Amino acid sequence: MARIVQKFGGTSVGDIERIRNAALRVKREVDAGNEVAVIVSAMANVTNQLVEYVHEFGALYDQKEYDAVVSSGEQVTSGLMALALQELGIPARSWLSWQIPIHTDDAHGKARIEIIETAEAKKSLATGEVMVVAGFQGIGPDNRVTTLGRGGSDTSAVALAAALEAERCDIFTDVDGVYTCDPRIIAKARKLDKVTYEEMLEMASLGSKVLQPRSVEMAMKYGVRVQVRSTFDEANGTLIVDEDEVLEKEVISGIAYSRDEAKITLVRVADKPGVAADIFGPLSEANINVDMIVQNVSEDGAATDLTFTVTKGDLARAVAVLEERRDDLGYARLVPDPDVVKISIIGVGMRSHAGVAQQMFSALAKEGINIQVISTSEIKVSVLVAEKHTEKALSALHTAYGLDVS
Amino acid sequence: MARIVQKFGGTSVGDIERIRNAALRVKREVDAGNEVAVIVSAMANVTNQLVEYVHEFGALYDQKEYDAVVSSGEQVTSGLMALALQELGIPARSWLSWQIPIHTDDAHGKARIEIIETAEAKKSLATGEVMVVAGFQGIGPDNRVTTLGRGGSDTSAVALAAALEAERCDIFTDVDGVYTCDPRIIAKARKLDKVTYEEMLEMASLGSKVLQPRSVEMAMKYGVRVQVRSTFDEANGTLIVDEDEVLEKEVISGIAYSRDEAKITLVRVADKPGVAADIFGPLSEANINVDMIVQNVSEDGAATDLTFTVTKGDLARAVAVLEERRDDLGYARLVPDPDVVKISIIGVGMRSHAGVAQQMFSALAKEGINIQVISTSEIKVSVLVAEKHTEKALSALHTAYGLDVS
Repeated sequence: MARIVQKFGGTSVGDIERIRNAALRVKREVDAGNEVAVIVSAMANVTNQLVEYVHEFGALYDQKEYDAVVSSGEQVTSGLMALALQELGIPARSWLSWQIPIHTDDAHGKARIEIIETAEAKKSLATGEVMVVAGFQGIGPDNRVTTLGRGGSDTSAVALAAALEAERCDIFTDVDGVYTCDPRIIAKARKLDKVTYEEMLEMASLGSKVLQPRSVEMAMKYGVRVQVRSTFDEANGTLIVDEDEVLEKEVISGIAYSRDEAKITLVRVADKPGVAADIFGPLSEANINVDMIVQNVSEDGAATDLTFTVTKGDLARAVAVLEERRDDLGYARLVPDPDVVKISIIGVGMRSHAGVAQQMFSALAKEGINIQVISTSEIKVSVLVAEKHTEKALSALHTAYGLDVS
Repeated sequence: MARIVQKFGGTSVGDIERIRNAALRVKREVDAGNEVAVIVSAMANVTNQLVEYVHEFGALYDQKEYDAVVSSGEQVTSGLMALALQELGIPARSWLSWQIPIHTDDAHGKARIEIIETAEAKKSLATGEVMVVAGFQGIGPDNRVTTLGRGGSDTSAVALAAALEAERCDIFTDVDGVYTCDPRIIAKARKLDKVTYEEMLEMASLGSKVLQPRSVEMAMKYGVRVQVRSTFDEANGTLIVDEDEVLEKEVISGIAYSRDEAKITLVRVADKPGVAADIFGPLSEANINVDMIVQNVSEDGAATDLTFTVTKGDLARAVAVLEERRDDLGYARLVPDPDVVKISIIGVGMRSHAGVAQQMFSALAKEGINIQVISTSEIKVSVLVAEKHTEKALSALHTAYGLDVS
């Protein structure tokens, strides 16, 4: 007997038939004698409709009310999933976050789980009752509903698995695992049997939408064994595990990309101490995250070009902030470019292999693809290229690193 | 300065524009310096959709999960209404029933409010913040969500008004008040300026859908001044008040009807002690409410005919229960008839006027309408007639009691 957490995403509970199908996956674990806690997302598209309602009140809406409205979607699914389980003869009940409770900080709209009280939950599980928990939400210090950000149900699941010391946390979704690259673009992409927390965290942060990055961070911190698998077929998915468990480390495990990037170049900025702070300070105050940054060496020692990236959604605001301060910053020209993509190669094996980045640069050069910005960390290399090259670049890299399915 | 409760029904908050319109009605009370608590229903049709989902799991679903699912509709509206008020510059926040909290008994699906804790609510109102409360729900003794039955937001509003000792409870709806008869059928129906609690309670119980009967009962018990009025126009509505406040009592204040009736006649039942208990006992055990009952005097002293009514929805089940016991009950025939309507005249003036019922019977006789069953109480007379006569009967009675608009 073990304790298992199962999480079902929006498409897996998109209508009553799919909820019934998901309930069968739960039944299998119950029949095997396990204690099961289920986390559910809102039915597909429900959250979008609720978010639209809130957006009708403009951009500066009260995040606390956003959370009250948007969290209702998961509440509906939790009740329906409990009913579907009861229909199969399985004792089950829905749990809202204030009933468990799941405590978060007060960062409404993107709250972080602080502590989950498990006394009531464990009592319920011990009676053989399946817990069906509304994902994506918690309660804040002021006793109001908080939400954990888009994809937050992944984090609910991993956090509950950690709190319940579950043996496994299965994330059921509409893909059957984590791939070496997006299989909608790269037909030869290969499903990974295992991937390390670190790699998964980079992949999630760098554009792979399989898991919310924070859920991976939490799984890594608490050593939760996460498996990503499909609700719709029987195959094993991808296990996310500690580095020690991966015996043969691939140099590169996967290639991620993000189209949600935009580039800004400031031409001929004064090359003097403090200029970076003058530029990035105001952006940070405006709540704009800057990602990649490159500063060219200046030829004459007086002025330099500065290039950096923000998300596409922040581009217009970033430009406005910088133009307002043009006189102070003293740049010659501001060149915005939304038509870029960030492509990243990720792998823990990179640590012990030289020449990995060089291999990336030559593969792209061979295709005639110009690299605009480069950034690296211990287990990844990211480059910014023109968006129109996305498919060609991914395909070339996938082949170059020997990832193609044979 | 006064404390006011305003309740908006489903059509009054049917979309974002209507929520904004309702918010303007709240603003008016705030601008007048009042403390305002708002109760909202779910957006029109949302509850129906949620109920449909639950019904997909058959008739014997878990009422606790029904409540978890169905209560989410009001949660959404409460957040959106708070946003609409904030948009008008009015401080406002949503309250879910577990946050106030509103305690109910454990009769899930039709729970009764037991106590509302008002300490937090009063603190919030005192700061000038409008409370927007999700109607229709509470929390039960086991800390799970309960709902109060269809139309339950009326009861939420009156209960909150009583707990907060509010000066007035305005029920905003899509009609502009309580009429002498359903204006969709009787064009000459007249809006009542005032109606007594007793009369309103009879009207609500006898088929008028303006208010949930339990809300009127509660208003009567706690002396809450309720006003039924339209969200969509400015006219005063109908005030529901104590009998002392109505100076000139009409003999008849209104005429109600209910098509949700079905008649069952048992022909030649043994006329002996205990037979009524033998018949109505099993119906009551099957949770079937019996309304009007008539037992004919038997001619030979050995057998009699027994006629009674149930709701249309219970007819099939009632017939099944009685046929199962046919041998014990020993009736000759069972005649079900779903094509009936119950028509009731209501008025506190009836107490001091003789001949009111007689006037009803002659008016119907003059139209050639046969009365099948009669039942009376202190302030109402109800008759059962063939459903096809509904319009003709209502019209004849409306004229006979001088209720037509001149």
